[in-house]
Amino acid sequence: MITLIKNALASIDQKQYAKYDFVIKDGKILKILPHGSLLPDADKVIDASGQLLAPGFSNAHTHLPMSMFRGAGEDLSLENWLNDTMYPLEDRLYSEAVYLSSLISIIEMVKSGTTSIIDMYYFCADIFRAVKESGIRAILSRSVVGDKEQASVRIKESEELREMCLGEPLISFGNSLHAEYSCPFETIEQVTGIAAENGEPLIIHLSETKNENDGCRSRYNGLSPTQVFMKAGADKTKLIAAHGVWLDDTDMELLRGKTVVACPQSNLKLGSGIADVPRMLEHGINVALGTDGAASNNNLDMLLETRFLTLLSKRTDPLRMKGATALKIARAGGTKAMGVNAGRLEEGAEADLILIDISSERYQPLLNLDSHIVYSSRSDDVTMTMVAGNILMSERRILFADEKEIRARFDECARNIYQGE
Amino acid sequence: MITLIKNALASIDQKQYAKYDFVIKDGKILKILPHGSLLPDADKVIDASGQLLAPGFSNAHTHLPMSMFRGAGEDLSLENWLNDTMYPLEDRLYSEAVYLSSLISIIEMVKSGTTSIIDMYYFCADIFRAVKESGIRAILSRSVVGDKEQASVRIKESEELREMCLGEPLISFGNSLHAEYSCPFETIEQVTGIAAENGEPLIIHLSETKNENDGCRSRYNGLSPTQVFMKAGADKTKLIAAHGVWLDDTDMELLRGKTVVACPQSNLKLGSGIADVPRMLEHGINVALGTDGAASNNNLDMLLETRFLTLLSKRTDPLRMKGATALKIARAGGTKAMGVNAGRLEEGAEADLILIDISSERYQPLLNLDSHIVYSSRSDDVTMTMVAGNILMSERRILFADEKEIRARFDECARNIYQGE
Repeated sequence: MITLIKNALASIDQKQYAKYDFVIKDGKILKILPHGSLLPDADKVIDASGQLLAPGFSNAHTHLPMSMFRGAGEDLSLENWLNDTMYPLEDRLYSEAVYLSSLISIIEMVKSGTTSIIDMYYFCADIFRAVKESGIRAILSRSVVGDKEQASVRIKESEELREMCLGEPLISFGNSLHAEYSCPFETIEQVTGIAAENGEPLIIHLSETKNENDGCRSRYNGLSPTQVFMKAGADKTKLIAAHGVWLDDTDMELLRGKTVVACPQSNLKLGSGIADVPRMLEHGINVALGTDGAASNNNLDMLLETRFLTLLSKRTDPLRMKGATALKIARAGGTKAMGVNAGRLEEGAEADLILIDISSERYQPLLNLDSHIVYSSRSDDVTMTMVAGNILMSERRILFADEKEIRARFDECARNIYQGE
Repeated sequence: MITLIKNALASIDQKQYAKYDFVIKDGKILKILPHGSLLPDADKVIDASGQLLAPGFSNAHTHLPMSMFRGAGEDLSLENWLNDTMYPLEDRLYSEAVYLSSLISIIEMVKSGTTSIIDMYYFCADIFRAVKESGIRAILSRSVVGDKEQASVRIKESEELREMCLGEPLISFGNSLHAEYSCPFETIEQVTGIAAENGEPLIIHLSETKNENDGCRSRYNGLSPTQVFMKAGADKTKLIAAHGVWLDDTDMELLRGKTVVACPQSNLKLGSGIADVPRMLEHGINVALGTDGAASNNNLDMLLETRFLTLLSKRTDPLRMKGATALKIARAGGTKAMGVNAGRLEEGAEADLILIDISSERYQPLLNLDSHIVYSSRSDDVTMTMVAGNILMSERRILFADEKEIRARFDECARNIYQGE
C-alpha cells in the first residue's frame, strides 16, 4: 500500500517551509521529495495544495472515558473535585458508557490532530475496544490503587490488559500506579517491580499539587513523591510521570532521562500551579505534553495545550521557551516515551501525520508558519489526520465511526449516569 | 426594521439555559420571550435551533493594523520586540496597508464573536474607514507620545479623529496617551486635561512590565505609573488602562471605578507577567478583557482570551475566579467602559449578539453550557455575529467585505512592507 501526499508545505530538518511530496509505504514515511520529483505508482494520492503537512500530536497523559464528566465539577480544588464529584460519578460508570465516552474523546482528539495517546484508567477492555476501532496509536494502562488485597485485583486486570495488547500493531501496554498518595509503599514497590522486570512503561501521577508533596514528606520522613518512587525502584523503569508541577531540582535530577508529561490547562484549572518545563529540559528530562482528562481541562486539543505550554513558560521571560520547542515537545515527547519513531518528518519515521489548512486570516501574513501554528491556529484548521499511514479523519469527517450514531448512544449513557436513580 | 431570532438556547438572569425567541428592533433587544410565544411580524427571521444565543465579546484593548506584523517578532522581550522589530516595521506602514490590516483584524474578530472594540494606534483615518465599513462597534483613539512639539502634531490628528466620529452611531472617540514611559509629564497633563474637560475616555498602557514600573519610580521620586497619571488628573477622566500587570494595592485603590483591560495572552508572550484580576475586582475596578494587537498575541480570539483569563486566575486557587465571572468580564467589561448598554441579554440592551453552534463533541455532555463555552468551545463554533441588530457574519461568511479580495490586497501590502527596499 503506497499513499502519496503531494504538494504539501513542510519544514524538513528545521529548514524554511517548502513544497514536498511524501511517499508513505507500510505505515511509514518512505521518501520525502521536493515537489515535482518523479514519484512511484500509488494506491492513493492526496492533493495537499495550500496545506501544511506536520507530525501529529502525541497526547501523553489522558483518561479517555472522562469526557462523560466534562463540565460536571467546576470551580473546585483537586481534592474536592476528585472526592465530591469525580469519584461519586465514576461509581455510576458502566461498560457501554466507558466505550462511548472513549470514542467521543478520540473523535475530539483526532479532529484536532492527535495521532497517539497514553491513557491511564480502568474499564480497560472497553477503552481498548474504542482505541482499536479508531486506529489511533496508544499505550493503555490500568491504574492500580489501594492496599495489597485491593491492588491484587487491579494488577490482575492490568495483566488481562497486557494480554489484550499482545500482537497489536498500534496499541501497547503500560503498568500504572495512580499516585503516591493513593497507594501504600508495598503496592508501589510491587507494580514498580513488575514494570522494571518486564521492561515496560510505568505510568504515574507525580507531584501534581503542593498538598500531595507536603503529605508525602510527612508520610515518608521528608522524602518527595519522586524520591519515594525511586526508592521503590522506578529508576529501573520506563517512567512516564504526569504533571510534575511541584518537582524541585533534586527530583528533576532523579528524573533525568525519564518522561514528565506537562498538563498545563488541567493544572491551572484545578489550581495546582504551573510546571517549570524549561527547568525540566535543563535537567535532561524527556518532557511530553498531555491534556489530562476532559473533566479537568475541559478540552482535548493539543494545539491549544501547546499554546498554553509556550505562553506559560514565557510568562517571566519570553526567551525561556521558543514556540518551536513547545511544538517538538507536543509532537515527539509522547512518542519518545512510547518508544515509537514518530513526531518528526523524516524518512523511516511512522506516518503519524496531519494536514493543516492555512488559508484563513489567522495565518496572515504567511511569514512565520510555526509561529502561526503555535499562537494563532485553531484545531478546526486540521483537515486530515493519519496514523501509521491510515487516514482516520479527512475534511473534518471521522472515518472510523458514525459520529451521529455514537453521539446518540453517548447521550443515552449520559442520561443514565446523570439522571439515573 | 424588526428581526426575530427564534428558538435559541439562552440563559437569562443567570438562570438555566432554556429556549427563547428574541425580538430585535432599531438595533436593540425589544423583547425576550419564552419560545413559542406570539411574535410580531418581522422583516427577517433567524432560526437558531440547536444554537446558543449569547452577548458578543467586547475586545477592550487592541491595535487593529498590527495583524500586518503577526509572527514578525517572536521570542523577544517587550523592549526588544518594540524597538528592534515593531518600530522599524511601523516605519514602513502606509495608508492602504493600515486599512487592509485593520479589515483583516476585524474579519478575524467578527468571525470569533467580537462585537465591539477599543483601539489605540495612528493612521486613524484608515482605521476609521475599515471600522465604519465593517459595522463593528468601536472607540478609536490616536495614541499621543513625545514632547510638547511632537505631541501637538499628534493631538491635532486626535482632534481630526474626533471630528470624524461626530454623529457616528457606532464609532466614538477616545483620547489616548501611549504610556508614562513614552510621554513627558507635560504631555500627560495636557492630554489628560483634554479628556477630563470633554468627559471623554482616556486610553493608556499602564504598568505592563516591571521595567516600566521601576523606571517610573526612579523618574518620579517613587511614584508608580498610576500615581503619575492620577497626579496629572486622570482621576477626573473616564480612564481605560490596558494591562495593569504590575499594579499594587495602592494603585488598584486609585483605580476604583476606572477600567483596567487585562490582556493575558499578550502579557505571557512578551514575558510581562500575569495580572491579578481577582484582586482588581475586589478593589472595585471595572475589569475588561483585550487581545492586544495581533503582533503580540498572535490571535484576536476573545473566546480563547476568556479561557486564559479564567485559567490563569485559578492557577493557585480554583475558587479565585469562576468561568461565569470571566465571561461577564469578556462581554460587559468593555461595553461598560464604552458607556454602552450591551454585553448582556436583557430587554433594552443593544443587540450585539452571537450564535454558537453546540453540536460538536466538545459540548458533550450538554450539562453545563457556560463551562463548555469557557473551557471547551472554539471560536469556529460562532455561526452569526450581530452588531446593533445588523448581521456582520452569518454561517462563517463575512457580509461586509469580499474576503478573497481583501486577502489578495493585504498580501500585496505585506510584500511591499517585508520585501520592499
